[in-house]
Amino acid sequence: MNLEQIYHPVKPGLELVEAKLAEISSDEIPLLSQLLQYALLKVGKRVRPAITLLCGKFYSYDLELLVPMATAVEVLHIGTLVHDDIIDNADMRHGKPAVYRAWGKNSALLLGDYLFSRAGSLATTTENLRVIRRFTETLMTISGGELREGSQTFDMASARDSYYKWISDKTACLFVMASECASVLSGCPEEQVQALKDYALNFGLAFQIIDDILDFVGDPAVLGKPVGSDLSEGASTLPSILYAEKYPKDRTIHAIIVDHRKDLVPLAVEKVRASGIIDDCRSIAQEFSQRASLSLDKLPDCDARRSLKALVAFVIERNR
Amino acid sequence: MNLEQIYHPVKPGLELVEAKLAEISSDEIPLLSQLLQYALLKVGKRVRPAITLLCGKFYSYDLELLVPMATAVEVLHIGTLVHDDIIDNADMRHGKPAVYRAWGKNSALLLGDYLFSRAGSLATTTENLRVIRRFTETLMTISGGELREGSQTFDMASARDSYYKWISDKTACLFVMASECASVLSGCPEEQVQALKDYALNFGLAFQIIDDILDFVGDPAVLGKPVGSDLSEGASTLPSILYAEKYPKDRTIHAIIVDHRKDLVPLAVEKVRASGIIDDCRSIAQEFSQRASLSLDKLPDCDARRSLKALVAFVIERNR
Repeated sequence: MNLEQIYHPVKPGLELVEAKLAEISSDEIPLLSQLLQYALLKVGKRVRPAITLLCGKFYSYDLELLVPMATAVEVLHIGTLVHDDIIDNADMRHGKPAVYRAWGKNSALLLGDYLFSRAGSLATTTENLRVIRRFTETLMTISGGELREGSQTFDMASARDSYYKWISDKTACLFVMASECASVLSGCPEEQVQALKDYALNFGLAFQIIDDILDFVGDPAVLGKPVGSDLSEGASTLPSILYAEKYPKDRTIHAIIVDHRKDLVPLAVEKVRASGIIDDCRSIAQEFSQRASLSLDKLPDCDARRSLKALVAFVIERNR
Repeated sequence: MNLEQIYHPVKPGLELVEAKLAEISSDEIPLLSQLLQYALLKVGKRVRPAITLLCGKFYSYDLELLVPMATAVEVLHIGTLVHDDIIDNADMRHGKPAVYRAWGKNSALLLGDYLFSRAGSLATTTENLRVIRRFTETLMTISGGELREGSQTFDMASARDSYYKWISDKTACLFVMASECASVLSGCPEEQVQALKDYALNFGLAFQIIDDILDFVGDPAVLGKPVGSDLSEGASTLPSILYAEKYPKDRTIHAIIVDHRKDLVPLAVEKVRASGIIDDCRSIAQEFSQRASLSLDKLPDCDARRSLKALVAFVIERNR
C-alpha cells in the first residue's frame, strides 16, 4: 500500500486538518502569518495527524474532537522541530531552509513558543481533562529527554538503553500521546487504549531507528542533510552504538563523540556501512514494527486497523 | 508598606509556592535539576504568585487550587524570561548570569520549553476548563506580541499605541491571566473577575513603564544591566517615544532604531534624562496605577484588597 491508500480511511479528516492548519496560519500580525505559513503548510507527510485520526476511528469517530486533536499533535511536533533545528544547526527541513535559517534564530525561537501554546490551546478545545493533561505533559518529556541526552557521557555499557530511552522520549512519546488522546476521545475501552499506545510506542521506536539508519545510508539529496549528521552533532545513534559494541577496540566513534573529532565522521560512516551493522539495525526496527502490528490484534478488524498495520510497514521501507 | 507587609495576607500560600517550586526543581535528570534550581529558586520578588494568591483571596481561598495556579504563573513567567534573555543577548538576570550565559543556549532553549510544559501541567491540575484555556493561550499572546514588535518599523504616528499594545502583550497579559484564573478558581462573581482583570491590566502597564523608565535612569549596579539596554536592542520604549514626539526634529532616536547607530545610545540617554520626559513617563505610570487602584473599589474591602492597592503603589516607587 502506498501512503495515499493507507491514509484513505481518514482522507476527509486529514483535509480538515489541512484546513485547520491554514486557518491557524492566518494571523493579523504579518510576520507571524508568514512564519506560520512557512512552518506549517505544505510540509511533511502528516504521519502524526494520520495516526491520530486512525487511532480515533475504531469507535466514535467524532471529527469535531479529533480534527483539533490531530492538528494539535502536528502543531506541537512542528514546534519541536523549529526549536530542534536551532539546537542542531540543521540547514534544511522538509526540503527547504530550516525556519531559523530563513527567518533568524529569534523569530524561530518565538515561533516555536507560539506553536506550543497554539497546540495546547487546540488540545483544550476537546474539553477532555485526561486528554489535555496528557497533551500538556508531552513537551516536558520531549525537552527533558533532550536535556538528559545532552548531559550523557559516552558509556558503552548503558549506550543501548540510553538510546532507547532517548528516542522513546524524543520521538515515540508524541505518537503515544496522540494514540492515547485519540482513542480516549473516541470512547475506546481502556484495554484497547493501552493496545494502541503499545502500537504507537513501537511504531515510534521503529520510525526513529529508520531515521537513524538513513543518516548513515540515505541519499543526502533526498534527506536534505549530509550523511553522518548525527555523529557530527555528537549524537550516537543505534548504528554507531552497535558498531562500537561489535568492535570494542575500534575507537573511531569514541573519538568523535568524546573528543569531538568531527574529521573522523566520514571514516566512521564508511566503517559502519561496511560492517553489516545497518542490516542488524533494520532487523531491530523490524522487530519493533512487528510488535506494533501485533498489539493491534487486540482491536476490532477494520479499515483503520489495516491502515495502521500498513503504515508501520511503510515506515520501515521508507527512504526519506 | 514594604513588600513583606504587602505579602502578609498570603504569606503561608507563598511559602507553599516556594515549596512547590523546590519540588519541581528536583528531577531524576541531573542536568535538568541543576537548570531548574538555577532558574526557579531564590530568584525575583515573586510578584506574580503574590498577585495570583491575593486575587484569589476575596472569596473561597482554596490553596489546593491556588498554589498550583500561582506556581504555574511563575513557572510560565520564568520560562519566557529564559527565552527572552537569549533573544535580547541579556547578560544578567536576577543578579546572576542569564541561564543561557551560564548553561549555554541549547540548554536554555530546552529549559524554556520544559518550563512552558510544566506550567501548563500545573495549571491543568486545577481541572477548571476556563482556567486551563486562558492559561494555555497566554504564551500565544506573549510570543505573538514579540513577533509583532519585531516586525514593526519606527512610525512616530502610531508609536505610542504600538508601545501600549506591545507591553500589554508581553507583560500585562500574564498579570491579567493570573487575576482571571485566581478569581475564577475562588468563585468570584463575574463582575468582580472583570474588575480584578482591569486591576491587573493597569498594574501590568504601570509595572512595565517603570521598568522602561529604569532603563534610562536606574542604577546599572542595582539593575544588573547597562543604562540604555532597550535602545541598544533596538526597542523604543515610552521615554524615547515621548522624546521623539516632543522633539520631532531631533533624529537621534530615529538613527538608533532605524539605522542601528548604537554609538548614539549614550547621547540619547543623556538627552532623555535632561528633557524632563522621565517625569512625564512617571505621571503616565501613575495614571495607570490609579486606574488599577480604582478598579479594586468594586471588590469587598479586606486585607487582600489593601495589599493589592499597596502593591501597585510599591511598584511605582521601585528602583529595581
